[in-house]
Amino acid sequence: MPTPITNHKPPTTSHGIRAAVLPAPGIAPEVRSYSLPEMENGAILLRTIASEVCGTDVHLHHGRLAGVPYPLIPGHVSVGEIDQVCGTVLDVDGLPLQTGDVITFLDVHGTCNSCWYCLVAKATTRCPHRRVYGITFGADESPGLSGGWAEYIYLRPGTKIIRLEPGVTPDAWIAGGCGLPTAVHAIELAQIRLGDRVLVQGSGPVGLNCAALAMLSGAGWVGVIGAPENRLRTAKGMGAVWTMDVTTTTPEERYRAVRDATGGRGPDIVIEASGNPLAVPEGCALTRDAGRYIIVGQYTDNGSIELNPHLHINKKHLEIRGCWGSDFSHVYRAMQIAARFGKQVPWPSLISRRYGLEEVGQALADVEAGRVVKAVVVPDSA
Amino acid sequence: MPTPITNHKPPTTSHGIRAAVLPAPGIAPEVRSYSLPEMENGAILLRTIASEVCGTDVHLHHGRLAGVPYPLIPGHVSVGEIDQVCGTVLDVDGLPLQTGDVITFLDVHGTCNSCWYCLVAKATTRCPHRRVYGITFGADESPGLSGGWAEYIYLRPGTKIIRLEPGVTPDAWIAGGCGLPTAVHAIELAQIRLGDRVLVQGSGPVGLNCAALAMLSGAGWVGVIGAPENRLRTAKGMGAVWTMDVTTTTPEERYRAVRDATGGRGPDIVIEASGNPLAVPEGCALTRDAGRYIIVGQYTDNGSIELNPHLHINKKHLEIRGCWGSDFSHVYRAMQIAARFGKQVPWPSLISRRYGLEEVGQALADVEAGRVVKAVVVPDSA
Amino acid sequence: MPTPITNHKPPTTSHGIRAAVLPAPGIAPEVRSYSLPEMENGAILLRTIASEVCGTDVHLHHGRLAGVPYPLIPGHVSVGEIDQVCGTVLDVDGLPLQTGDVITFLDVHGTCNSCWYCLVAKATTRCPHRRVYGITFGADESPGLSGGWAEYIYLRPGTKIIRLEPGVTPDAWIAGGCGLPTAVHAIELAQIRLGDRVLVQGSGPVGLNCAALAMLSGAGWVGVIGAPENRLRTAKGMGAVWTMDVTTTTPEERYRAVRDATGGRGPDIVIEASGNPLAVPEGCALTRDAGRYIIVGQYTDNGSIELNPHLHINKKHLEIRGCWGSDFSHVYRAMQIAARFGKQVPWPSLISRRYGLEEVGQALADVEAGRVVKAVVVPDSA
Amino acid sequence: MPTPITNHKPPTTSHGIRAAVLPAPGIAPEVRSYSLPEMENGAILLRTIASEVCGTDVHLHHGRLAGVPYPLIPGHVSVGEIDQVCGTVLDVDGLPLQTGDVITFLDVHGTCNSCWYCLVAKATTRCPHRRVYGITFGADESPGLSGGWAEYIYLRPGTKIIRLEPGVTPDAWIAGGCGLPTAVHAIELAQIRLGDRVLVQGSGPVGLNCAALAMLSGAGWVGVIGAPENRLRTAKGMGAVWTMDVTTTTPEERYRAVRDATGGRGPDIVIEASGNPLAVPEGCALTRDAGRYIIVGQYTDNGSIELNPHLHINKKHLEIRGCWGSDFSHVYRAMQIAARFGKQVPWPSLISRRYGLEEVGQALADVEAGRVVKAVVVPDSA
Repeated sequence: MPTPITNHKPPTTSHGIRAAVLPAPGIAPEVRSYSLPEMENGAILLRTIASEVCGTDVHLHHGRLAGVPYPLIPGHVSVGEIDQVCGTVLDVDGLPLQTGDVITFLDVHGTCNSCWYCLVAKATTRCPHRRVYGITFGADESPGLSGGWAEYIYLRPGTKIIRLEPGVTPDAWIAGGCGLPTAVHAIELAQIRLGDRVLVQGSGPVGLNCAALAMLSGAGWVGVIGAPENRLRTAKGMGAVWTMDVTTTTPEERYRAVRDATGGRGPDIVIEASGNPLAVPEGCALTRDAGRYIIVGQYTDNGSIELNPHLHINKKHLEIRGCWGSDFSHVYRAMQIAARFGKQVPWPSLISRRYGLEEVGQALADVEAGRVVKAVVVPDSA
Repeated sequence: MPTPITNHKPPTTSHGIRAAVLPAPGIAPEVRSYSLPEMENGAILLRTIASEVCGTDVHLHHGRLAGVPYPLIPGHVSVGEIDQVCGTVLDVDGLPLQTGDVITFLDVHGTCNSCWYCLVAKATTRCPHRRVYGITFGADESPGLSGGWAEYIYLRPGTKIIRLEPGVTPDAWIAGGCGLPTAVHAIELAQIRLGDRVLVQGSGPVGLNCAALAMLSGAGWVGVIGAPENRLRTAKGMGAVWTMDVTTTTPEERYRAVRDATGGRGPDIVIEASGNPLAVPEGCALTRDAGRYIIVGQYTDNGSIELNPHLHINKKHLEIRGCWGSDFSHVYRAMQIAARFGKQVPWPSLISRRYGLEEVGQALADVEAGRVVKAVVVPDSA
Repeated sequence: MPTPITNHKPPTTSHGIRAAVLPAPGIAPEVRSYSLPEMENGAILLRTIASEVCGTDVHLHHGRLAGVPYPLIPGHVSVGEIDQVCGTVLDVDGLPLQTGDVITFLDVHGTCNSCWYCLVAKATTRCPHRRVYGITFGADESPGLSGGWAEYIYLRPGTKIIRLEPGVTPDAWIAGGCGLPTAVHAIELAQIRLGDRVLVQGSGPVGLNCAALAMLSGAGWVGVIGAPENRLRTAKGMGAVWTMDVTTTTPEERYRAVRDATGGRGPDIVIEASGNPLAVPEGCALTRDAGRYIIVGQYTDNGSIELNPHLHINKKHLEIRGCWGSDFSHVYRAMQIAARFGKQVPWPSLISRRYGLEEVGQALADVEAGRVVKAVVVPDSA
Repeated sequence: MPTPITNHKPPTTSHGIRAAVLPAPGIAPEVRSYSLPEMENGAILLRTIASEVCGTDVHLHHGRLAGVPYPLIPGHVSVGEIDQVCGTVLDVDGLPLQTGDVITFLDVHGTCNSCWYCLVAKATTRCPHRRVYGITFGADESPGLSGGWAEYIYLRPGTKIIRLEPGVTPDAWIAGGCGLPTAVHAIELAQIRLGDRVLVQGSGPVGLNCAALAMLSGAGWVGVIGAPENRLRTAKGMGAVWTMDVTTTTPEERYRAVRDATGGRGPDIVIEASGNPLAVPEGCALTRDAGRYIIVGQYTDNGSIELNPHLHINKKHLEIRGCWGSDFSHVYRAMQIAARFGKQVPWPSLISRRYGLEEVGQALADVEAGRVVKAVVVPDSA
């Protein structure tokens, strides 16, 4: 249980810190009040400016992820202003973080830098000690306030923090959300070369960001297969030059249309960002022979599909790369990209609506129904 | 139709050139007689010393491959002695090939070096102009004698030829057969690092060669899952330190046993060389997180399997590489490897039995039944 | 000696084919007249629209390259309209080339696809059989007309040809010149990631194209060190955000300024495109630790420099990649890039002046003096 | 200053902990006595079994490295038995380390996992916070006992520790010494393929280990250029098939001999492990065109050399990789390799002589003179 405040001036009024909480799978979210944790050395108290609602939050609401400790304050990607720093906390450039800095942070905490996955395989996103703000830190687990759907977030010592670069507004960053670092990782694995044709399956936040980053990487052609129509329009604004509605076409029609749009051979690179398992065999077939297929959208278990190893992989000489998680380098590069390319990519336009803490139930429903591209929680808006 | 001999001394007696032929799918092979083609400039006439019977030949016999022009003289990997050279033909070192040289050659002919796959994608094994000796050159297609199950093979101009290195006997080379260059390609994609744990699925010629090459690459542990028992014993002779019989175990037992044998995490690299589609989801599961899975065994269409993209690929951060075909570099490296490591790897021991041209029906039956590891056709043994 | 025309209608008047010729090292160029070669099957006769004058041509004029057979018709990168096709000649997509097509071609001819470098090392730019239009085919060597500073160019069978994409004018292509494919190769080796900082040493055609392609690849910062001032202004138009004049600064000043402009650590990637050997130790020092240094500018032997292996390479954990030559993939990608990004990159603005065949002496002098960015020879302008 | 022992039973007698100390540059080493540090949580006290004398120690003795805090207890790679564990300390497999375990450890301590080099560049060997046991921890710096030439070593919390694998004796490990993990890193960068020809420059511990690991990686040919004759004999025992004495030959003779031994083209990969700067231009010239050159031997500043960027790098299309430092993955892999290949590679035979603490002056002299291959300090042997 979070400990009571003793050694510092409470930043809030007598009502305590308000947070939107998922009490348990399937139960409607409610607003609860928490006291501030006692600050450890190296910790930071962050006044939340904005937090994200993403597809994972819908899964959390329905209880589809294993190992989640309810009740839970969701919100894994957030932006805030530093309210307090306990001791000295440095950023990656060795500069101290200070009260008033507007920052964001890697949602993953506790990558151990001691286990075999961290040290030998150098696959830190598979470190078994990783914990995630807003997902695997429970609301009642000390020190508490570990999710972004709250007026304040308590950043434990060791949290990987980065300042928003000049020109990157909280809106721009939260609009990119977890989708942007995820896309940075996927694009890193995609190894796009100048002029390559890149197809993205899925027009949610990850897919839209992948399309934008493929364009920024110098792809010669960027296509998006997705839905609904308004997201496909957004995709064109983000950098796609070709889109197709997955809900009104057959796989055969899509295959034919993609072949026609890509010189008859298919895209050099295809990125799966839809989360629909059926996209995987279709994506294998769509990729050109000896091309590369990145699977970044299958973050939850939506079941199995049929795949023909001979036709889909072996004979095509296909390379497939699963892409799991983000590390700090992806957040860092995402920030550089947001700062450098903010004029080319209209990230803030992804934000469809802002919600107060009392409205997160509506936010979850809107995200689930696809009525919004990006829903943002603004804790002090209530 | 092959043209009659006119301008050179026939190397054979009046009976013509004898060859074992597959008349049509499902029809028993028979021995037919052919005249020698007229030699074009750059062509070579090869007296066959030995030719291979591989699993592909069984598929050819049953008509399972598309685009095969029957009647067919099978035999894609062969060793022979040069009988005639028409004009000057150079090897990759620029040295002229001469009568009496004992050579082998890349079974693929006609990689065009002009199309998009050859020149831009640099994926020459997907060049659409490739033709294959013993598979896609028909027996009645001019100039003829385009398969190894014959007393002579006509090597068209442009065939990629290599001398057997000193110490590499025809037996050693043909024992490696097409499996050795195929394994060289798979191991190249596997990018094994010293001490890596490598598991091979399948104990046929490709699997056994993969095990040997993994060992030679400095793998810290090499395991083979396959059958029958005699092939698993052979696997140990080739370099495996651990084997398991796929016919007497369940996937769960294999999963547990492999985990136990690999430090609890699974092999760093798994190579699919069984040809059984069911091996693919099992191989994904067996590979450690963030490991690499090479699929080289699915050379024919044996149907679809169920795969869970979340569990098998995305969450594991798995890399999968399909491996199709061989190019000359793989044959060249295979030759260097056979010469350098002939004392460490007992390739000739893979040869279970030799067959004359009249016995190829028996050879096909023996290969199909798994009664032999490597069956070799010796045309002049009859 | 080129053979006389016999079997086709001469495309020109009685004066023969006019070409600008370098008679011998150090001798002024002169215009000579040639007859058309007899067309072999697979050959193409190209009416020259424009040809390039590059730094190599200055070296040719001074006799600084070994193995050049004078007299020589220079001009290795050219654009023309097909006047005649002898037989059927296909492009990489398998489509036949036809009279009237506006095309360019890889200046390298005869990459053999048979030697160890081509087939095993897959380092085709080191194939010893390569010959280069305008450089190593002499004017008096049959079939002749093998350089672009002529009214017609004879393209031998096997020349790798590509049509100008819609939207790519001859001006745009020749402005890119040999610098664009060269830069495509260098950028391929550079493996830029989104947001990387990239510094280019040199503001000649290769350097300017590298700056443009680094920008198109999503670099977060592109700097150019070069001279004179007008080329640095051009560099900003091509994509650089930072430039420094090499003629008015010391290495120490440049080191300090680059560090200040790149977060104190130095660029992630530095590309040497100046041709000055002194740039190499400076470039090593400028690159950040564990960064990558591409050396693409040292195409002629300008002597040795002092380098400290400990400080410049080993302790920095530096990766250095020499980049020699271009293959067809680089020309193909260059064409895709020119078509896709022609609105972002003002290639035609690089052309400073056009010269007729009689004026090539002036063109060489202007290039040598740096008075022009790109000089273009227009054979029919006289 | 190390703090006095208070809370645990001193493992030693009344004389304190004896250690060999370098008082200052150029001053002869002497044996001093230290008290045990107070154990922090996470610390381990190690009874030294053996420690290494390497070339770096000679440099330390002469004061050739910057930033070394004298007086110094040298000895960066060591093997010992755990005497005490304060709290719970886990290895990379999550298993607790215990009294009596025989272990070794990464000599680098304090890689921060927080700076830009650690988190973004993922170049942890360039982390500016690294400290090194036996090199940059002074003898008088608290908590003390930070070098291996002492009866006990104090392992600070966070030290990366690994148990000796079954079959790996302390002798075998210390014989490999720092040269083995260094070679693991170099070989990782070398990316040897089966059958590649590999040349090593230098026959000291790093060079000998590189030769052994190249052989284990499946190189088709391993050559060593070095001296004196006894080390070249050792090289053959470690896996080289060809050696040449650098002291009795000219660069031209070596160039010719290496070309003759490598098919006329030169080795595919050359590894610089001599520390002589002159080896670098020679190594560039020796490597085949489009080959790879690893520079791992230039750990101290021995001055500059002349290099021709055109001939040595650009025209050769050469790739050069500087290799700095080792991380825990290299120590881990080194241990796996030592366990797996201990029968193939006679590591213990590298040990020429053992020295007590009083004899380290002699050890330094012997190493400097090349009279020994590997000198080992055995603290309790006095």
